[in-house]
Amino acid sequence: MQYLCEIFFKKNMSLVITGTVAFDAIETPFGKTDKIVGGAATYASLAASYFYEKVKIVSVVGEDFPQSDINLFKEHNIATDGLQIIKGQKSFFWAGKYHIDMNSRDTLTTELNVLENFDPIIPESYQDCEYLLLGNLTPQIQRTTIQRLKNRPKLIVLDTMNFWMDVALDDLLDTISRVDVLTINDAEARQLSGEYSLVKAAKKILAMGPEYLVIKKGEHGALLFNEDQVFSAPALPLAEVFDPTGAGDTFAGGFIGYLAKVGTINFNNMKNALIFGSALASFCVEKFGTEGLKNLSTEAIATRVREFVELSSFVIEQ
Amino acid sequence: MQYLCEIFFKKNMSLVITGTVAFDAIETPFGKTDKIVGGAATYASLAASYFYEKVKIVSVVGEDFPQSDINLFKEHNIATDGLQIIKGQKSFFWAGKYHIDMNSRDTLTTELNVLENFDPIIPESYQDCEYLLLGNLTPQIQRTTIQRLKNRPKLIVLDTMNFWMDVALDDLLDTISRVDVLTINDAEARQLSGEYSLVKAAKKILAMGPEYLVIKKGEHGALLFNEDQVFSAPALPLAEVFDPTGAGDTFAGGFIGYLAKVGTINFNNMKNALIFGSALASFCVEKFGTEGLKNLSTEAIATRVREFVELSSFVIEQ
Repeated sequence: MQYLCEIFFKKNMSLVITGTVAFDAIETPFGKTDKIVGGAATYASLAASYFYEKVKIVSVVGEDFPQSDINLFKEHNIATDGLQIIKGQKSFFWAGKYHIDMNSRDTLTTELNVLENFDPIIPESYQDCEYLLLGNLTPQIQRTTIQRLKNRPKLIVLDTMNFWMDVALDDLLDTISRVDVLTINDAEARQLSGEYSLVKAAKKILAMGPEYLVIKKGEHGALLFNEDQVFSAPALPLAEVFDPTGAGDTFAGGFIGYLAKVGTINFNNMKNALIFGSALASFCVEKFGTEGLKNLSTEAIATRVREFVELSSFVIEQ
Repeated sequence: MQYLCEIFFKKNMSLVITGTVAFDAIETPFGKTDKIVGGAATYASLAASYFYEKVKIVSVVGEDFPQSDINLFKEHNIATDGLQIIKGQKSFFWAGKYHIDMNSRDTLTTELNVLENFDPIIPESYQDCEYLLLGNLTPQIQRTTIQRLKNRPKLIVLDTMNFWMDVALDDLLDTISRVDVLTINDAEARQLSGEYSLVKAAKKILAMGPEYLVIKKGEHGALLFNEDQVFSAPALPLAEVFDPTGAGDTFAGGFIGYLAKVGTINFNNMKNALIFGSALASFCVEKFGTEGLKNLSTEAIATRVREFVELSSFVIEQ
């Protein structure tokens, strides 16, 4: 019966994504941008839009955010009813510079602006939320988003970072206890658990509440843990990485977008979601900002996913 | 015809492994050892012995090397005719201390001793060498070993390290140009090629001579490249890593041992060889020194390999 309901109502259920919508100025060894559109919700929703037709964002921008950039969402069929535009204020702005290894970066500027007093509004049209991605933001806002949904979504994925472990650990732990999947990187998994071994770290983090833990390792791929299983997804070795900005957000968006598409939550589908998330992230880093996520064809994504299959498949007869 | 010859003569063909046989004193966050038996040829030959029955080592020790440790080789059916014992001299000795992350270490002591004037002797009984592993040693000695074999082996695998890139680059490049497979870690691939991207690094390194390049990434697994293919082997996430010493040598030994066993050199068999090498390395790091490589059952290895299969397999229907 539940299955039938899902089939019948699937078209009406939505995937809600919170996170920043912002301006970034990025410098990498390969070039430099002026202020371009960025932010966790931007990358994640673009990625998710390639898998699911009902993506809706909850975020905030200032008066300075151009309509042309809001049109980017509309072009990808992403609802922006929950995107507040605050008059007389400026959008969140981040400027950063990547080192040659592309794994480390310096933050040059962080202007919170509209984020300082961001109070997430969940429009009535978002109350059919079945899949919720809490993109990187303060753990308080992430929790408030959950609380303002009348029904608990079928799947809540939380993406966060070391900064919140440093400045808002109690709030973060409370938010973590309410979600199904946590996505963090390996250094963050070690910081959060106090364990160097990722196996031990995963055990401790899963005890904090989530049923699944995704550990993102950048150029080394990602690991998926639940209580008794582990999966290792490779990263595609790329000749050129132009700009890693948004790769983690893109991964999270592709991950939940794929799960929303298939509709059934289990370890096998999660494994595939890691692969599709990684595939989208590989497009993201090949160009500056969100450029790599625009106008992707279904065929291009399928080809990229096949590269992941070829990259990691082997047959051992025993 | 070649195939028939291989079948007929397989039992007589050998896998020769050069490298150090030495004493190590190891300190990790989990404990400390006195002088224990170590060295590249030791780890590699023990690993290879689980796959192939004719493993023969070329190395050198001093008078201080106890018969009980030489018996370790005999127990694993490893020929020691090429292991020189130099009267009045001491064995190579290395002492090191690992940091908490287990990926970095400080060398506390390096005493070359017998290695200083090591001139590799290839006994007549080794001239049936079909598979040759040049374990970590000076590139000159590695090259001499090749030159002293009357017939060019079917497969030569070279393992080396950054130290030789620093102090003997020309010799190293010459030796690299003579081998079929090079195994190095990611930092070394970047140093050797001058390229940060491992895809670009692989292209440059393959142009130096080898048909295959294996890039070892420790806890992140390994990559295999040839001219137009790439394979990513995962590393098994382990709850406990007691001692990484010898993991790379063990990997190389398991890798070539598996290839010697299957007898056919192609990309698919190389992929499996990476998995078997990684499986053996995972046993190695679970205990101190060579302890993890002693008395492994066929069933234990098969079970470990199945863990690699489960870890990395996924099915995407497109």
